[in-house]
Amino acid sequence: MAHIQLPDELPGIRGPMAFSPHTAKPMNELAEILLRDDNNTLTRGERELIGAYVSYLNDCFFCQNVHGALAQHYMQCDMQFIDSIKNDFQSTTISEKLKTLLAIAGSVQKGGRFVTTAQIEAAKNAGATDKEIHDTVLIAAAFCMFNRYVDGLATWAPADRNVYVQRAKMRAEEGYLDFDLYK
Amino acid sequence: MAHIQLPDELPGIRGPMAFSPHTAKPMNELAEILLRDDNNTLTRGERELIGAYVSYLNDCFFCQNVHGALAQHYMQCDMQFIDSIKNDFQSTTISEKLKTLLAIAGSVQKGGRFVTTAQIEAAKNAGATDKEIHDTVLIAAAFCMFNRYVDGLATWAPADRNVYVQRAKMRAEEGYLDFDLYK
Repeated sequence: MAHIQLPDELPGIRGPMAFSPHTAKPMNELAEILLRDDNNTLTRGERELIGAYVSYLNDCFFCQNVHGALAQHYMQCDMQFIDSIKNDFQSTTISEKLKTLLAIAGSVQKGGRFVTTAQIEAAKNAGATDKEIHDTVLIAAAFCMFNRYVDGLATWAPADRNVYVQRAKMRAEEGYLDFDLYK
Repeated sequence: MAHIQLPDELPGIRGPMAFSPHTAKPMNELAEILLRDDNNTLTRGERELIGAYVSYLNDCFFCQNVHGALAQHYMQCDMQFIDSIKNDFQSTTISEKLKTLLAIAGSVQKGGRFVTTAQIEAAKNAGATDKEIHDTVLIAAAFCMFNRYVDGLATWAPADRNVYVQRAKMRAEEGYLDFDLYK
């Protein structure tokens, strides 16, 4: 049971967002720009993967599956590949640049001061631009907010991971600005 | 030196926000609603204090001083009182309700799952409403984002705490939507 009275039928972040639509609006606008804006050299799949990885580190079941499923949808892989990245991204076939960005995201999850100059150098050496580094830091920071919002209020989440995979295609089409979902 | 090329003259979060105004806009809108909206039974001082406390726990010098200075401005106290709250709020003269909310905020800072049913019960017993608990969780979560954005990019901050106190009155008047600051 959630810590406060939320709409029973809405899972995860959708309950608190229905409870507080005025704060949901800028939060969804931030997600839309960070994760979906076309003016970005990181693919949507790469950005969702960064979010899923940070959500995994924060032990947020709802967010890691929503965004993991979106990452697998965009990357045209399966959830097992997403899981292998979460567990040990260095040993996977993702690009060197994405590995350096996930390392930065992992440090941001611990705290801003954990990001090292060596991590930034490695990302730049792998071809990451300032905007890509900026967006990685902000995506990781934003998921530290979203994850805490979801779990800090003890929301419920579907236990069946197939539910997330099935919803990913629709979410990818609709984006994060479909406020009717939160009414 | 910041990890990416930011405007030299802007301290703290203002550098990254000038670098990325499209993401700054919803972030500032979220801060404006959470920390300043009049439709709230938590005072502006109490809300800024929650933000300052979480920023202190996250070791973010810039945010804890910007928002600590705003809290002392609204609460008409001095920075020593804000410091005493950050160090040991239980032994201060703030209200019992605010103490229970700061305890929840402290758990959110560690991670959403650290919030306990006992903490929620204590807040409700001290008179906290569902909206006050919701806002406390989201303010704490949002500062976990802001703090990581500021420090994850290694921004600079004025070392003199008087600078923050001197700016607090103007910031209290202008709020968080003055986008000219970020141009």
